[in-house]
Amino acid sequence: MIVIGELINGMYKDVGKAIVSRETDVIQHLAEEQVKAGANALDVNTGPYSKNPADDMKWLVESIRKVVSVPLALDSTKLDVIEEGLKLAGRRAIINSTSADYDKMNRVFGLAKKYDAQVIGLTMDKSGVPDSKDKRLELAAIIIAKAIDAGMKTEDIYLDPVVMPVNVAQSQGREAIEAIREFMLLSDPAPQAVIGLSNVSQGAKPRSLINRTFLAMAIANGLTAAILDPLDSELMDAMITAEVLRNKNIYCASYLEAYRKK
Amino acid sequence: MIVIGELINGMYKDVGKAIVSRETDVIQHLAEEQVKAGANALDVNTGPYSKNPADDMKWLVESIRKVVSVPLALDSTKLDVIEEGLKLAGRRAIINSTSADYDKMNRVFGLAKKYDAQVIGLTMDKSGVPDSKDKRLELAAIIIAKAIDAGMKTEDIYLDPVVMPVNVAQSQGREAIEAIREFMLLSDPAPQAVIGLSNVSQGAKPRSLINRTFLAMAIANGLTAAILDPLDSELMDAMITAEVLRNKNIYCASYLEAYRKK
Repeated sequence: MIVIGELINGMYKDVGKAIVSRETDVIQHLAEEQVKAGANALDVNTGPYSKNPADDMKWLVESIRKVVSVPLALDSTKLDVIEEGLKLAGRRAIINSTSADYDKMNRVFGLAKKYDAQVIGLTMDKSGVPDSKDKRLELAAIIIAKAIDAGMKTEDIYLDPVVMPVNVAQSQGREAIEAIREFMLLSDPAPQAVIGLSNVSQGAKPRSLINRTFLAMAIANGLTAAILDPLDSELMDAMITAEVLRNKNIYCASYLEAYRKK
Repeated sequence: MIVIGELINGMYKDVGKAIVSRETDVIQHLAEEQVKAGANALDVNTGPYSKNPADDMKWLVESIRKVVSVPLALDSTKLDVIEEGLKLAGRRAIINSTSADYDKMNRVFGLAKKYDAQVIGLTMDKSGVPDSKDKRLELAAIIIAKAIDAGMKTEDIYLDPVVMPVNVAQSQGREAIEAIREFMLLSDPAPQAVIGLSNVSQGAKPRSLINRTFLAMAIANGLTAAILDPLDSELMDAMITAEVLRNKNIYCASYLEAYRKK
């Protein structure tokens, strides 16, 4: 399971303020804490209030790179912002994200090839987020086909079924999870399957319980990566346990501690 | 989700003692507490130390029937013991259980027809517990075919993939869960799928975390019933949440409380 820490995101008040005020220690602390808690990668998003997102991305990546070496998921709707990050992020960065629209995929896969990056592909397009497993699968197939055309390795594509809040689109949790199961059959080697976990509980409660339950359910259907809060220790416990029950890590009486020491 | 409370089982020390000493209040309290916590049915097992299991079963069912009216899952390897329970249990009792062996199925389905009972069918036979999804499915198909021959309704058969302890047979959790998914395709109407949840954490720890994570994973693959400890409130929270995420119960901000008030 690839855990992508979600906390370096300017939409969170403290992080937004740290970006504006160039508080390096706040960002570095978040990077270190997330990696210590088990993050294998870190999402980096300048947030909706950034006035100079390309500059902010550059500063964020420089700050993070001084303290941790895990891959970074560069998260922006603007490709020039992502490219600023790619220049500095180093090994195996992840572009977060492309949709299944051809113009966007052309530009994203071009960048990915140039910087040897991986790509998160959202199964949505200009007409919005699909309301069924089958439509998600259709868009996933378009993304995989285009990625192969662009010379990408399929295992470097993270397909994201776009999880919706349970209080807004309750039927879509199951559709997203069933889509994950079928994503795994789209190519050989299989692509990755990723979710932005916190979306499922956006505006709902109790958030942590909903998040960790949904994560276990998604892992039971083949999820290989998630953007989540690694500082939620109950969530990490559920993830580690689900991986053991899925036979991905070996069980021992201290499997929770063993995972965290890794 | 059909929650079958597991606590009235003579293998637990207090219950075993209560059976020997005919402490009606202990059994009745356990029955009431489990139903209050959300059990839709109660497992009843005289336990391994019972000297007169048929008498004990009769006393247990009589005691329980004075305080709660939910269906009882009569749990014994001995069919005469189960029949003592069936005589007194009333509506929609559950025979726990048959294997996929023909001689056993003949007798169990005969009893089920006589008393209008449902049946738990373990996907195992004289050669033991299978070590793969496919073998479980093969035995499940034998059980369903035999049940139909015997004039049973398929929705009255609870197929049980036989969950093994994670510390003994770690690979089997996934096989059992994948089997559940395919059980649902064996007949129309679909059979029920049930697990003896606590088995997964037998001898392992932390038990409650392992149980509730496995339950969410199984629900994500179609589980419709489980024998479990309804007094484990974190387990019940996970179950209720998984059902909401599976779109079986409607989400509202107080969905945990709403479920429990039902």
